[in-house]
Amino acid sequence: MHAEVAITRWEGDRAREDVDTVVVEEPLEIRIHGESLTVTMRTPGDDFALAAGLLFAEGIVRTPDEIGAMAYCEDPENPELQNIVNVYLEAGWPQDTEAARWKRNFLANSSCGLCGKASIEAVRCLAPPLPPSEFRVSVGVIGQLSDRLRAAQRIFAKTGGLHAAGLFDGAGNLLALREDVGRHNAVDKLIGSELLAGRAPLSERILMVSGRTSFEIMQKAAVARIPIVCAVSAPSSLAVQLARDLHMTLIGFLRGDTMNVYAGAERLAGA
Amino acid sequence: MHAEVAITRWEGDRAREDVDTVVVEEPLEIRIHGESLTVTMRTPGDDFALAAGLLFAEGIVRTPDEIGAMAYCEDPENPELQNIVNVYLEAGWPQDTEAARWKRNFLANSSCGLCGKASIEAVRCLAPPLPPSEFRVSVGVIGQLSDRLRAAQRIFAKTGGLHAAGLFDGAGNLLALREDVGRHNAVDKLIGSELLAGRAPLSERILMVSGRTSFEIMQKAAVARIPIVCAVSAPSSLAVQLARDLHMTLIGFLRGDTMNVYAGAERLAGA
Repeated sequence: MHAEVAITRWEGDRAREDVDTVVVEEPLEIRIHGESLTVTMRTPGDDFALAAGLLFAEGIVRTPDEIGAMAYCEDPENPELQNIVNVYLEAGWPQDTEAARWKRNFLANSSCGLCGKASIEAVRCLAPPLPPSEFRVSVGVIGQLSDRLRAAQRIFAKTGGLHAAGLFDGAGNLLALREDVGRHNAVDKLIGSELLAGRAPLSERILMVSGRTSFEIMQKAAVARIPIVCAVSAPSSLAVQLARDLHMTLIGFLRGDTMNVYAGAERLAGA
Repeated sequence: MHAEVAITRWEGDRAREDVDTVVVEEPLEIRIHGESLTVTMRTPGDDFALAAGLLFAEGIVRTPDEIGAMAYCEDPENPELQNIVNVYLEAGWPQDTEAARWKRNFLANSSCGLCGKASIEAVRCLAPPLPPSEFRVSVGVIGQLSDRLRAAQRIFAKTGGLHAAGLFDGAGNLLALREDVGRHNAVDKLIGSELLAGRAPLSERILMVSGRTSFEIMQKAAVARIPIVCAVSAPSSLAVQLARDLHMTLIGFLRGDTMNVYAGAERLAGA
């Protein structure tokens, strides 16, 4: 499932308006007998299989027969949104210790009406849109970031298993680099270390990640007030939407001096 | 942070024993005033920054001053393990509605003694080690899987933003493919649809994922009884350990006919 978004495509010092296809990301809440179990950011489609697979992996159901029924929670306010799946188990909530333990391990969560828009509203409570500023970066500087991040990733070269997050200033100097097996962790470590050092908010900084940009990566950048986020790979639909709503700059497919600008192109100056 | 593991490296029809470096993956539990907030699978190191960054991104702390102290929870049984960080907030648990809402959104979790070994033990409760079987696959068949998965990923070609999980039989036929913005979701959708169709356990199947293999991917495969897991990219230390403990076959860096076999090499026959 995908969506089309208008972008600015830079190749060297040439920019043109274009359209790009991004994968759709929306929250899915899984409930058992109306009780919230977990929320996952997913691509819509195959939601009943997703719910069944998750319950199976966690040992909450062992066979398909244990699932009595699955149904979308229809929100009368948003009839087109199907972001809540309600699961009814044949035997009720499992009572044995093992399953009860997993029950405790899951998230408790919000009411009906879960959707991408609601997720963005939740972030806006934490982080209002970025105010206008003079902070501009040339595409020539941006075009050097992927090589600089890669060069700094010594562990990456060794294992190929680590996600990286790098913090750059407006001149393209690498200020900090963190790596982790989880891409959200790499960003949390990077921003957390700046916070502990008393250097937040990061209003004139660029965040660059080695993988893709999801909603949650953009949330972390927004709360830290980082105006420009770059990624080697693609953004999700909800990452693009959050960037636009909060007036952030979002760059994807940054490889050498080619890049797609999904939001906030006004912060980029020609090479 | 990385670990060295013994592997079998196949290139075409030639195998040799080798050593590979994998990134370390261990659980980290973050507590506030001793109360469990969340557990994340992370690469050890910079744990206080990780905790601070996560609390900051979720709006639980706004400035570093709001963090009074952070300390590892030392487990007298496992003095070398530092997988629990306890955070003390200056003002106690925040009481305003916004922060209280986040508190409810987080996981409640287990007691002291959290470590990779404990995580594996938890999976063993759900999924005992795979029994010996006659299921063997030739490396010639495995060598075709990455091309076949890629060819089937129509959406991937369009957006570059989707993780894929493919299910193959022992002859290398693609039986099912699921894609998602989240790699765990892709595996849940794949296994969940097989479960709902009454085709689990998947004892003579191969799971192939487009990205890396983490502990959680291996957990999902283990519960579904999938004996062979292949990935385009690297496994984590804990993925390797779980595969070995549960007698699963784990293949990484599968690109054309070259691959690293991290566990269960006995299920592979020469080309």
